[in-house]
Amino acid sequence: MKVLVVGGTGTIGAAVVDALRAAGHEVRTAERSGGELQVDMRSTQSVQAMLAQAGRVDAIMSCAGSGAWKPLAELSDDDFETSLHYKLMGQVNLARYGADSLADGGSVTLTSGVLASEPMPGSAAISLVNAGLEGFVRAAALEMPRGVRVNVVSPPWVSETLQAMGQDPSGGMPAADVARAYVDAVTATYTGQVVDARRFA
Amino acid sequence: MKVLVVGGTGTIGAAVVDALRAAGHEVRTAERSGGELQVDMRSTQSVQAMLAQAGRVDAIMSCAGSGAWKPLAELSDDDFETSLHYKLMGQVNLARYGADSLADGGSVTLTSGVLASEPMPGSAAISLVNAGLEGFVRAAALEMPRGVRVNVVSPPWVSETLQAMGQDPSGGMPAADVARAYVDAVTATYTGQVVDARRFA
Repeated sequence: MKVLVVGGTGTIGAAVVDALRAAGHEVRTAERSGGELQVDMRSTQSVQAMLAQAGRVDAIMSCAGSGAWKPLAELSDDDFETSLHYKLMGQVNLARYGADSLADGGSVTLTSGVLASEPMPGSAAISLVNAGLEGFVRAAALEMPRGVRVNVVSPPWVSETLQAMGQDPSGGMPAADVARAYVDAVTATYTGQVVDARRFA
Repeated sequence: MKVLVVGGTGTIGAAVVDALRAAGHEVRTAERSGGELQVDMRSTQSVQAMLAQAGRVDAIMSCAGSGAWKPLAELSDDDFETSLHYKLMGQVNLARYGADSLADGGSVTLTSGVLASEPMPGSAAISLVNAGLEGFVRAAALEMPRGVRVNVVSPPWVSETLQAMGQDPSGGMPAADVARAYVDAVTATYTGQVVDARRFA
């Protein structure tokens, strides 16, 4: 399959690209800078231009987008706006505009995260974004054209991220294992699902 | 208790105001126009000004905010922006800025809806907004100051709304019954909960 991966150089994204290539898929990557294609996920026009450049693919995946991690009282209007437009609407727009780039029966796979349903202090904006993405995906799946599927993978804390934060990596899941959830979402037949990556540990 | 109700003239809002007054609470209402206080929920400044005018209260409730109900392919960027800023961030801002207006141990009660988890064709933007609100509330509850609680009521289709749409009202729940969920959220002690109004049918 031809798979377009947005955010393929992040911790999870790089593992997803490796896993897709190991499974024999042809991968193209889109990044904010560098990468084969460039995209600014905050801009509808940039998402549309990147999709036009990518041409017809069998699957679109996003491992892109972060949100503001801050105490609730310190989250500014700008923190919410950035979280809403980068991780949330950026991925929503990939699904909305990506459908036309996909072959019949193709798929879109987005990324939310465990904080959608299991919040922590500091996660208010991220929990909003992740839960919103999941609500969107459940609904959008009912209306995607030509058998196109849309799902969202919910990763837990990733070992490599915890290690980079100076925390115990054994509290997380290795990115290579998380990547199996994305490969599953591309090759399976389900749609409208929140795929808990912990099922692939 | 002194309760500030935003959106107290809508189908659900009016029933909530009636139920609160019947239970002996003192109610002030804020509306886009008319009402005792005016507020444009899309504007952070307007929400802050309305809260300042309302003064100290024991509870803030929002029955306000709609989203764009349209086929996915017809939802425009503007439809998403309006949904994000009216029902979603408008209510998020009530919780963020309302905390300071609340007495110790006060409460914020927002409104999502059944489409968060049970979508229908046409609900993509609304499902996103409702689910995002629920994610926010679960997280924000961990960080509200001075024992302030925050919950979100999820109403099903309301009989009166179905009737107004020319549909069978027996498929919905009467607004007066839905209102009991809001009264419960104000008088109970839980926080961070999505209150399924169908429990009060």
